[in-house]
Amino acid sequence: MKQYIVIGCGRFGSSVAKTLYKMGHDVLAIDGNEDIVQNISEEVTHAVQADATDEHALRSLGIRNFDVAVITIGSDIQSSIMATLIVKELGVKYVVAKAQNEMHAKVLYKIGADRVVFPERDMGMRVAHNLVYTNILDYIELAPEYSIMEVTALEDWIGKSLLEINIRSKYGINVMAIKHEGDRINVSPTAKDIINKDDVLVVIGHNNDLKKLERE
Amino acid sequence: MKQYIVIGCGRFGSSVAKTLYKMGHDVLAIDGNEDIVQNISEEVTHAVQADATDEHALRSLGIRNFDVAVITIGSDIQSSIMATLIVKELGVKYVVAKAQNEMHAKVLYKIGADRVVFPERDMGMRVAHNLVYTNILDYIELAPEYSIMEVTALEDWIGKSLLEINIRSKYGINVMAIKHEGDRINVSPTAKDIINKDDVLVVIGHNNDLKKLERE
Amino acid sequence: MKQYIVIGCGRFGSSVAKTLYKMGHDVLAIDGNEDIVQNISEEVTHAVQADATDEHALRSLGIRNFDVAVITIGSDIQSSIMATLIVKELGVKYVVAKAQNEMHAKVLYKIGADRVVFPERDMGMRVAHNLVYTNILDYIELAPEYSIMEVTALEDWIGKSLLEINIRSKYGINVMAIKHEGDRINVSPTAKDIINKDDVLVVIGHNNDLKKLERE
Amino acid sequence: MKQYIVIGCGRFGSSVAKTLYKMGHDVLAIDGNEDIVQNISEEVTHAVQADATDEHALRSLGIRNFDVAVITIGSDIQSSIMATLIVKELGVKYVVAKAQNEMHAKVLYKIGADRVVFPERDMGMRVAHNLVYTNILDYIELAPEYSIMEVTALEDWIGKSLLEINIRSKYGINVMAIKHEGDRINVSPTAKDIINKDDVLVVIGHNNDLKKLERE
Amino acid sequence: MKQYIVIGCGRFGSSVAKTLYKMGHDVLAIDGNEDIVQNISEEVTHAVQADATDEHALRSLGIRNFDVAVITIGSDIQSSIMATLIVKELGVKYVVAKAQNEMHAKVLYKIGADRVVFPERDMGMRVAHNLVYTNILDYIELAPEYSIMEVTALEDWIGKSLLEINIRSKYGINVMAIKHEGDRINVSPTAKDIINKDDVLVVIGHNNDLKKLERE
Amino acid sequence: MKQYIVIGCGRFGSSVAKTLYKMGHDVLAIDGNEDIVQNISEEVTHAVQADATDEHALRSLGIRNFDVAVITIGSDIQSSIMATLIVKELGVKYVVAKAQNEMHAKVLYKIGADRVVFPERDMGMRVAHNLVYTNILDYIELAPEYSIMEVTALEDWIGKSLLEINIRSKYGINVMAIKHEGDRINVSPTAKDIINKDDVLVVIGHNNDLKKLERE
Amino acid sequence: MKQYIVIGCGRFGSSVAKTLYKMGHDVLAIDGNEDIVQNISEEVTHAVQADATDEHALRSLGIRNFDVAVITIGSDIQSSIMATLIVKELGVKYVVAKAQNEMHAKVLYKIGADRVVFPERDMGMRVAHNLVYTNILDYIELAPEYSIMEVTALEDWIGKSLLEINIRSKYGINVMAIKHEGDRINVSPTAKDIINKDDVLVVIGHNNDLKKLERE
Amino acid sequence: MKQYIVIGCGRFGSSVAKTLYKMGHDVLAIDGNEDIVQNISEEVTHAVQADATDEHALRSLGIRNFDVAVITIGSDIQSSIMATLIVKELGVKYVVAKAQNEMHAKVLYKIGADRVVFPERDMGMRVAHNLVYTNILDYIELAPEYSIMEVTALEDWIGKSLLEINIRSKYGINVMAIKHEGDRINVSPTAKDIINKDDVLVVIGHNNDLKKLERE
Repeated sequence: MKQYIVIGCGRFGSSVAKTLYKMGHDVLAIDGNEDIVQNISEEVTHAVQADATDEHALRSLGIRNFDVAVITIGSDIQSSIMATLIVKELGVKYVVAKAQNEMHAKVLYKIGADRVVFPERDMGMRVAHNLVYTNILDYIELAPEYSIMEVTALEDWIGKSLLEINIRSKYGINVMAIKHEGDRINVSPTAKDIINKDDVLVVIGHNNDLKKLERE
Repeated sequence: MKQYIVIGCGRFGSSVAKTLYKMGHDVLAIDGNEDIVQNISEEVTHAVQADATDEHALRSLGIRNFDVAVITIGSDIQSSIMATLIVKELGVKYVVAKAQNEMHAKVLYKIGADRVVFPERDMGMRVAHNLVYTNILDYIELAPEYSIMEVTALEDWIGKSLLEINIRSKYGINVMAIKHEGDRINVSPTAKDIINKDDVLVVIGHNNDLKKLERE
Repeated sequence: MKQYIVIGCGRFGSSVAKTLYKMGHDVLAIDGNEDIVQNISEEVTHAVQADATDEHALRSLGIRNFDVAVITIGSDIQSSIMATLIVKELGVKYVVAKAQNEMHAKVLYKIGADRVVFPERDMGMRVAHNLVYTNILDYIELAPEYSIMEVTALEDWIGKSLLEINIRSKYGINVMAIKHEGDRINVSPTAKDIINKDDVLVVIGHNNDLKKLERE
Repeated sequence: MKQYIVIGCGRFGSSVAKTLYKMGHDVLAIDGNEDIVQNISEEVTHAVQADATDEHALRSLGIRNFDVAVITIGSDIQSSIMATLIVKELGVKYVVAKAQNEMHAKVLYKIGADRVVFPERDMGMRVAHNLVYTNILDYIELAPEYSIMEVTALEDWIGKSLLEINIRSKYGINVMAIKHEGDRINVSPTAKDIINKDDVLVVIGHNNDLKKLERE
Repeated sequence: MKQYIVIGCGRFGSSVAKTLYKMGHDVLAIDGNEDIVQNISEEVTHAVQADATDEHALRSLGIRNFDVAVITIGSDIQSSIMATLIVKELGVKYVVAKAQNEMHAKVLYKIGADRVVFPERDMGMRVAHNLVYTNILDYIELAPEYSIMEVTALEDWIGKSLLEINIRSKYGINVMAIKHEGDRINVSPTAKDIINKDDVLVVIGHNNDLKKLERE
Repeated sequence: MKQYIVIGCGRFGSSVAKTLYKMGHDVLAIDGNEDIVQNISEEVTHAVQADATDEHALRSLGIRNFDVAVITIGSDIQSSIMATLIVKELGVKYVVAKAQNEMHAKVLYKIGADRVVFPERDMGMRVAHNLVYTNILDYIELAPEYSIMEVTALEDWIGKSLLEINIRSKYGINVMAIKHEGDRINVSPTAKDIINKDDVLVVIGHNNDLKKLERE
Repeated sequence: MKQYIVIGCGRFGSSVAKTLYKMGHDVLAIDGNEDIVQNISEEVTHAVQADATDEHALRSLGIRNFDVAVITIGSDIQSSIMATLIVKELGVKYVVAKAQNEMHAKVLYKIGADRVVFPERDMGMRVAHNLVYTNILDYIELAPEYSIMEVTALEDWIGKSLLEINIRSKYGINVMAIKHEGDRINVSPTAKDIINKDDVLVVIGHNNDLKKLERE
Repeated sequence: MKQYIVIGCGRFGSSVAKTLYKMGHDVLAIDGNEDIVQNISEEVTHAVQADATDEHALRSLGIRNFDVAVITIGSDIQSSIMATLIVKELGVKYVVAKAQNEMHAKVLYKIGADRVVFPERDMGMRVAHNLVYTNILDYIELAPEYSIMEVTALEDWIGKSLLEINIRSKYGINVMAIKHEGDRINVSPTAKDIINKDDVLVVIGHNNDLKKLERE
C-alpha cells in the first residue's frame, strides 16, 4: 500500500484523491480552503487545511514520507510551481502535476515534476471521440495507427455468427471478446458465436479499418 | 459529416472543439471572451464571440441547423443552464453539457440535456488508476468485474514465450495482442511468441486476476 | 392550517411570509443573510439563516414536512433554480417560484415548479391600470372582455337613484354592490337606492362599456 | 390621451411603462442604463437614456409637459428622492413614486409625491392570499370585513342549481355573476341557473362567510 | 445651558461639536465609525457609535430631549436626508443640516430642516476675500453695500493721528475701534489717537469706500 | 488685478475660485476630473483638466506667472503635498494650502506653504457660535477677550432710545452702528436714536459683557 | 552600541534591520502588517506591529531614545512623509528615508530627513555595471574619474609575475592586493608575485585605464 | 557593444536599463504598462509595450539576437518565471533575473537563469553597513574576513604623516590610496604623506582591524 498526497482538492484533485482512497491507499488531501477540506475529509485518510506554498507547513505534515504527490492546483500557476518545487525538495519520489498550458508544463518538468497532466484537454479529446463514434463505448490507442475499441454490435450483425458476419475479412479487424447481456464476458470468441442485440464487441485493428464500424 | 457547436472554449471546451475539427467535422466555437475566440479561430471551422445566454444571438447564428451542441460553460452554472435550454429549444437534436456537480447535472437533464459529463471527475479517476498501476498504460472497464488492460511486460517474462510464462493458467487472463518495439502490433499472439523487454501486452480478464499483474 | 416555507426574505418574500403568518398559518422563513432573518423573526413562526442551495441544510430543517414552498430568491437565478429543485426533490407538494424573466420561468417549470410568479411585472400592470382609471379603485378580470370594477361614483350621479342614473341601459353595466360611508355594504342594490358623494360602486360589464365610467 | 413619463425601467418600471403604452397612452421611458433603454424602446413611445437626478437633462426632455410621472428607481434611495423632487419642481401634476420602506415613503410624500407605492410588498400579500385560498382566483377588498371574490365552484355544487345549493342561506353570500366555459359571463344569475364543472362564481359577502368557500 | 446633538463627526462636524462643548454646552456626538467616536470622546459630553439612519438607535439615545441637532453627514446624501427626517420626527425643535448642493438643501428644507449650511462654499468665499484684501483680517457684511472690516494700518498712516490721516473725509469711512499692540482695544477712538505700526483698525463704511483701503 | 490659480475644484476650491472671479480677478482653475472642470469652466477665467502632481503639466500651464496659488486638494494628502511643493518651486510667490489635520499642516509649512487653512474646522466653529447665540448674526474676534458682534435687538429694547436702554452702563458695550429696515445703516448712532423691531446693532465690547446680549 | 529603529519591513527594510542586528546593534522593527512583524521577530531585537503615521503609537514605543531611524515605507508616499516628520519631531537625531522619486526625496529633505536613499535605483546601477564588466566583481568609485576594482585575472596574465605582466606601465593602474585560492589575501603584492588561474586582483586607477581590463 | 534587453521597467529595471544605455550599449526596454514605456523611451535605445509572458510577442521583437536579458519583473512571480523561461528558450545567452525570495530564486535557476539578484536585500545590507560605520564611505568584501574600505580620516590623524600615525602597526591595516581635496588621488601613498582634514583613505585589512577605524 502506497502513501499518496494530493495537493489541491478542486473537482479534479478531489476525484484523484477519492479514487485512490477507494482503491485502498493512504491519501492525505491538502487544500487552502477550509470548506473544501471539510467536504473531502470523510472520503480520504486525512484532509488538512494548509498553504501548499509554505515549505514549513508541508514539512511539518511529514510530506517526505509519502511515495507520490499529485499537485492539482489549477488556477494559480505560481502556487502550482512553488508546491511542486517544495514537495520535490522535501524528497517525494514521484510527483505528478497538473498544467494549464505547455509553458506551465515546461516549467513543471524543469523544476522536477515526473509527470505533467492536462486533464481538461485529455478529457475534451475523449468526449470528442465519443461524440463522433456514438457506438464506440471506449477505446485504447495501441499505436498511432492501431486501436482496441469497445463497440456496440451493428444492426445487420444481430442474429448472425462471427463466421457469417465475416468480420476479419470484411473489416480487417479481430474480435477479442464479446460482452453479452448480464455482463457475461466471452474472452475467447469462436466463429460460431452468435451476436445478439445489445452485445458489445471488443475489437482490435488498424484505425482505417475500425472506422468502418463507426455509426455516426 | 456532422455539424457541431461548442459553447464555451475553456481548456475542456477548446479541446473538444479542436479534436472534432481535426477529425474532419464542421465546428462552430462560441465564447463570450473575444481573446479566447481569437485564439481558437484557426483550429475550428468558425469561431464567434457571443453571449450564449442570449437567445437572439444564438438564433441568428443558425444554431438550429447543428446536429450536436456541447455546452462546456464551466464556472457559471446559470449560464450553463440557460445556454442548454436555449439550444434545446432552438431544436438541436443532441446536447451534451458539462456539469460541476450532481445538482447541476440533475437540472441539466431536466431541461433537456441528452448527456451530462464531468470531465475533471472522470479524468481524476483515470489519473488515479494510472498512478496505482504504474505498468498499466490504459484500460477499458468491460463489466464491473472484467477489464481489458494494456500492461508493460513484467520483468521475469522477458525472453520467455507465452507458453513458458503460462499466463492463462498462472494468472487466469488472456493475452489478446502484443505491441513490439516500433509499434508493430501482433493481434493474434500464439504460445510460441517471445516477450521482449519493453513489449506491451493487451490482456483481458477478471479484475482479481488482472491485479496480479500490477507493479505498484 | 397549512405549513408554509418561504425561501428568500427580500421585500417580496417577507411580504408573502408575513401575510401568511397573519392569516394564521405556520411559516418558516429562510434567508442567507443573518440581519434579514433577525428582522423578520418576530413576524413569522420560525426564521432561520441557511443557504437555500445546500440540500443538507434544507433537509435538516425538515422541509419535507411542509405543504407549500415559496422561492422568492430574486437576484441570483442560479440559487433560485437550485433551491426550487431541492425543495421539489425533498417532497414539498406545491412549489411557487419567483422568476426574473421568461427564460428563468421556463427553467423553473421544467425542474418542477408548480407555479411561477412575476411580482414586479404584475404589480406594474396593476399600477398602470390605476393610473389610467383614477376613479377605478380595484378590478378583477373575469374574461378577456369582461371585468368587475370598484369605481367611485361619477359626479353627475350624486344625489340620484340608480333608476334615475339608469346605469344599465345608459352604460350597459350592472351594479352589484354599493359601499356607503362608514364601510356599509349594500350587496343587493335596488333601483331606488340613492348614490351619495364618496360612494363606491361595484359594477360588472363588458370592458368597452366599463371604459365609459373612466375619469381619466 | 394622457402623457406619462416613467423614470427607471427595471422589472416594475418597464411593466408600468409597457402597460400604459398598450392601453394607448404616450409613454416616455427614462433609464440611466443604455441597454435597458434599448430593450424597452419598441414597447413605449420614446425611450431615452438620461440621469434622472440631473435637472438639466430632465428639463431638456420637456418633462414639464407630462401629466403623470412614475418614479420607479428602486435600489438607490437618493436618486429616487432627487428625481421625485425634480419632476415635481418642473411642474408635473401627478407623481407616483416607488418606495423601499416606510421612511423612504415619508420623505417622498414630504417632497411632493402624490402617491407612493410598495409593489413587492403589495404583490407579496396578493400571492399569499392566493396560496391560502387555492380556489379563489382573484379578490377585491371592499371594506375591512367585506370582499368580492372570484372562486371556482366547490365539488358538491356541480350539477346543481343555485336554488339547490342555497348559497345565500347556507353561506350568507350573494352570487353576482357566473363565468361558464368559453368565457361566457352570466351577470344576472337566477336561482335556476345550474353550476357546471369548471364554472367560476363571483360572490360578495362578509369575510367570515366567504372563508367557508375556501378549499385550502 | 442647551443640549446639542451632532450627527456625523468628520472635520466639520467634530469642529461644531468641540466648539459647542468648549462653550459650556452638553454635546452628544454620534458617528457610525468607531474610531472617529473614540477620537472625539474626550472633547464632548458623550460620544456614541450609532447608525444615524436607524430610528430605533436614535430613539434609544433619547434624542427627543435635545434642543438642537446638527446633521453634518457629508458624503452620503441619503443618510443625511434620513437622519434629518428622523431627528425631526423624534421631536428635536431646531435642526441644522449640512448640504452638498442646492438640490440637497431643497430636500432638507422640505423634510423639516430649520437651517441648511454649506460650510465649504461659505469658507471658500471667506478665504477668497482674505486673499484679495490681504490687509483685511476679517469682515462682516452689514448690508449688500455696507461692511465692517478689521484692517491693518496702511503704511502712510503710521505715526499719524486720526485727525492727520483724515480717514472720514478722505476715505468716507468711520473708525470704530483700534487694536494696539498687546491686544489693547480702544473702543472710542478720538481724532488725537496715533496709529502705530501693526495697529489694527475696525472701520465701517460703504464697500466702494472700503475698497480704497485694500492693499492687494 | 492679480492672477490666481486654484488647484482642486471640490466644494471649497470651486467656491474660492468662483468668488475670486466674481471679484474681478483672473482665475485659472485646475482639477484632475474632466466633469468638474467642465462644470466650473463658465465661472472662472480658465479651467483646465490636469494632474497637479505632474510638474511638467503645471509648468506648461505657465504657473510661474501667477501671483497666488490656492491648493485645495482635500482627500489625498500626498497630492496636496506634491502640488504645493511644485507650485512653490515653480516660483509662485504666495501659496495657500488646505490641510486635513495638524500633521498635514506642519508638512505644508515645512515645504513652503505661506498659509494653511482648515475650512471645515473654521466653519464648524462659526456654525457653533451662531447656534449658541441665535440673535448674533455675525462676529469678529478682535482679541482673545474682545469681539465685535452683529446682534438683533433684544425685545425690551424695542421702541426705546439708546439713552433709555442705557447699553453702555448696563451692559458695558458700545453700539457702533445700527442697521434699520431697508438696509439703511446708521454709522454714528446717538443717544437719541430709537431701536425698532428687527433692527440690527453692531456692538463692541468684552466677551463677558457681550454674553449678556445672548438670547439662547 | 547604537539603537536603531527601522520603520517598514519590506524586502529592503527587513534587510536593513537584519543586517544591523547581525552587526550587533539594537534594532526595533516596525511594520503595519502583523504577518511581516511575525516573520522578522526572531532576527531583530524587537518587532512591533504599529501604524507609523500615528504619533501616539510611535511616542509610546519610546522612539525618542533611538539614535537612528530608517524609514523604508515604500509604496505609500504619504505614510513615508508622515512617519519621517514624526520621528524627527520626536527627537531622533539621524533619520534615513527611502524615496520613490526626486520629488519625494525633496519633500523628505525639507521636512528634516538627514539622508534619502533610492535603493532600487542604486542597485540597478550596480547590476548594470556588473553586467557590462563581467570580470569586475565589485568596485568603489573614488572620484568621478578614479575607481578601485576587484577583477578576475585576464587569461594571458595567468602564470606570469606582475613584473612580466607589467600592469602599471601597460595599463596605467596599480595592483593593491591579490586574492589567491582559499581566500588568502596578499595585501602587499610585489613584482615577483605570480598570478594564478582564478586569482582576483584589487586594482586602482583612472577609469579610462581600468576599462582596458574589462572582458565584456 | 553588447545588446541588452531589460524586461520590467520599475524603479530597479529602469535604473538597470538607463545605466546600460548611458554606458554606451544598445538597450531594448520592455514593460506591460504603456505609461512606463513612454517615460523611459528617451533614455534607452528602444522601449516597447509588450506582455513578457507572451512568447509570440517576444519572438517578434527579435529577442533571440540579444546577448543579455535582465528580467526585473518584481511583484508577479509567475510572470517572472514565464518571462525567464521564454527568453532562455528563445536563445538569449545570459539571463539575469530578479527574485523576491529564496524559493523564487531556486525556480529561476532551475529553469535556466544564469544569475539571480536580490536588489532590495543587497541594498539593505549596504545601507546598514553605511549607517553603522559613518566614516566608511564604501567597501568591498574581499574575503569573509578581509575588506577594502574607503574611510574618512579620523580626527587625531589630521595634520600627521602616515609615519606619525603609524597605521600599519597600530591598526594592522594598509593604506592603499588617499583622496585629497579636489578629487586628487594619491595611489602610492608614502610614509611622509600628510593627512588633511576631509581626506579619504582607502585601506585594506582584516575586518577585526578595520573595525577599529569605525566612528560609530
